[in-house]
Amino acid sequence: MTPASPAHPSGLADFCWPLPAQPGDPLASVDTPALLLDLDAFDRNLARMQDAADAAGVALRPHAKAHKCPAIALAQMARGARGICCQKASEALPFLQAGITDIHVSNEVVGPVKARRLASMARHGRFSVCVDDLSQVDILAHAAAEEGSRLGVFIEINIGQDRCGVNDAPAALRLLEAISRHPQLAFAGLQAYHGGLQHLRSRSERQLAVVRASVQTTAFVQSLAGRGVSCPTVTGAGTGSVEFDLAQGIYTEVQPGSYIFMDGDYGRNEQGGLRFEQSLFVATAVMSDRREGQVVVDAGLKSLAVDSGLPAVWGEPGLRYAAANDEHGIVQRIEAGAPRPALGSLLRLVAGHCDPTLNLHDHLVGYRGDRVECVWPVSSRGMSR
Amino acid sequence: MTPASPAHPSGLADFCWPLPAQPGDPLASVDTPALLLDLDAFDRNLARMQDAADAAGVALRPHAKAHKCPAIALAQMARGARGICCQKASEALPFLQAGITDIHVSNEVVGPVKARRLASMARHGRFSVCVDDLSQVDILAHAAAEEGSRLGVFIEINIGQDRCGVNDAPAALRLLEAISRHPQLAFAGLQAYHGGLQHLRSRSERQLAVVRASVQTTAFVQSLAGRGVSCPTVTGAGTGSVEFDLAQGIYTEVQPGSYIFMDGDYGRNEQGGLRFEQSLFVATAVMSDRREGQVVVDAGLKSLAVDSGLPAVWGEPGLRYAAANDEHGIVQRIEAGAPRPALGSLLRLVAGHCDPTLNLHDHLVGYRGDRVECVWPVSSRGMSR
Repeated sequence: MTPASPAHPSGLADFCWPLPAQPGDPLASVDTPALLLDLDAFDRNLARMQDAADAAGVALRPHAKAHKCPAIALAQMARGARGICCQKASEALPFLQAGITDIHVSNEVVGPVKARRLASMARHGRFSVCVDDLSQVDILAHAAAEEGSRLGVFIEINIGQDRCGVNDAPAALRLLEAISRHPQLAFAGLQAYHGGLQHLRSRSERQLAVVRASVQTTAFVQSLAGRGVSCPTVTGAGTGSVEFDLAQGIYTEVQPGSYIFMDGDYGRNEQGGLRFEQSLFVATAVMSDRREGQVVVDAGLKSLAVDSGLPAVWGEPGLRYAAANDEHGIVQRIEAGAPRPALGSLLRLVAGHCDPTLNLHDHLVGYRGDRVECVWPVSSRGMSR
Repeated sequence: MTPASPAHPSGLADFCWPLPAQPGDPLASVDTPALLLDLDAFDRNLARMQDAADAAGVALRPHAKAHKCPAIALAQMARGARGICCQKASEALPFLQAGITDIHVSNEVVGPVKARRLASMARHGRFSVCVDDLSQVDILAHAAAEEGSRLGVFIEINIGQDRCGVNDAPAALRLLEAISRHPQLAFAGLQAYHGGLQHLRSRSERQLAVVRASVQTTAFVQSLAGRGVSCPTVTGAGTGSVEFDLAQGIYTEVQPGSYIFMDGDYGRNEQGGLRFEQSLFVATAVMSDRREGQVVVDAGLKSLAVDSGLPAVWGEPGLRYAAANDEHGIVQRIEAGAPRPALGSLLRLVAGHCDPTLNLHDHLVGYRGDRVECVWPVSSRGMSR
């Protein structure tokens, strides 16, 4: 254990940790844990969503909070997406730097520091953001004036999620009036999003919930119309509800994100006409097999989000991912006849929740069949401010 | 919303997203969400652990999987730590590059690719790693031979966690024999770690569990001694068990990690003679307050690990963090008289589990009183391979 060369300074430059894979590598050689994307399934998901939006005559603005990956946003734009959504101001920067210049920050941005950065980005593209409080309007206007830019402003309305958003049309009208006073701001429309109903399991329940939420959205739109105000855009919807949202005739733009990947939670939804395939996996290797009936894999809490349950082992119905430690996962054999994966062998896991799982990884390894095709940086990972 | 300057190429260099704070900033101005470290509490935690290890005559090798931050490792070394532990080979690289040259990878490393990288790092420092399977010994020896380095090898023994590690002394002896055949490998001793007992809530229960685990460890040590083999080092222990592990007389080295920070889960342990203080927080800002009895904060699943429960709101017993969405948290007022935090105000959250929370952030903002003192990179964040 005596160092073979001087302890620190020189010679460490050769130690950039290698990427998990390179294009052309066999899939089985991916260094684990690593995020995998089945590009064939991904391409089909892209096409299905764009086709459904086109058929409904509704614009598609996919949510980049799910992928945080400029290469994916560019693929969505190339198929016809109008732009993208981000959920945080900082999240938008890598997309802007990748050349995507139509970005809606589908959230309230708090305080003058973030507003100023947003306004600074808006010098280079078409940016919009949500408000639900008068103070935000003034802060945004001031920031845009300082930067010499313009911001589109959506009024977020509460359609049942009870998180952000104004409760009634009078509150929306007060915001609208404040927005109109500032030449740096342009009223962009309403944002009507209900996260909770994305995960109602039965299709008919989800449909009913979408209809109810749409009734509320329509009431806001009509109240504004009664005051002579038309909404340039009504934006919202997610992967779980989008097939019904597209049919309501109230949204002019939809924001699904997870449809490109799917995950364990969305997989538990009853799917219908608009079906998406699982394309996202976490590659993990068996690192220890000293116990009867179980093996230990090298992907735990630091490689997989578990807020929506533990991952499933893809294509291995006899195996169950039973516990997640920080850097270990316990995979148990739940069927007597199930093959016991060998030490070093690779398993594919389906995470319970795709968005926070992406946020744990710096790279996404795209493959077709058993061959790696691309390695994409997850450039907005960790950009949560 | 017309871009004020050409869409993409030039002018975007000014868009590096700023750090969450700079030394000298008032604490209240930290850009959220951000990881905060109370340096006074942190310093006391550092001292208490080192003093306890010194008093017991046991070496301290803190676990860097908790912090992933070279600046913290250097502070631990400066106080007397022997070296550090890492849990993954890649995790070790930023520490080596920061000049820390005594690193134990307290885990099995699977496959020739990772073994080769580990052996490559071992050219620049004193590295050790665990094994629990004969195949790993051969792979490590081959990698070290290829790199012209030497590796210390610990045999991991199962003392009740039933995860990795050999079950009995004959299996340990077979590994020892294999290790001895390779001049590139040096038998370093036994690793005896039991994660589950760290979180037993009652102190007496934890103490009893430590005694039981120590009996098992002692049996391994004696079996080896009976064959004329002495263990240079017996390493293990964690923050929850360390006060008892130090007293057993069997460990020659302890590996606690979380003691520097503490978290919601460790906070639920009954503490005793060796007490650690909460020093780690996630700063979050109130971003929306449109609902009665609750506010929305800007730290959700992408800023806080929730595997060990939702965070607590520090110093605000009347407030409860009730739900985590990807980028939002719902904070409810649970006492009628509790003050309602104003829009834009900053709250400090105590995450349920520190290790995976660190893994979500690129920077750690150290402060004393109401003033930022340092901003440290979390350099091994995401290095899970």
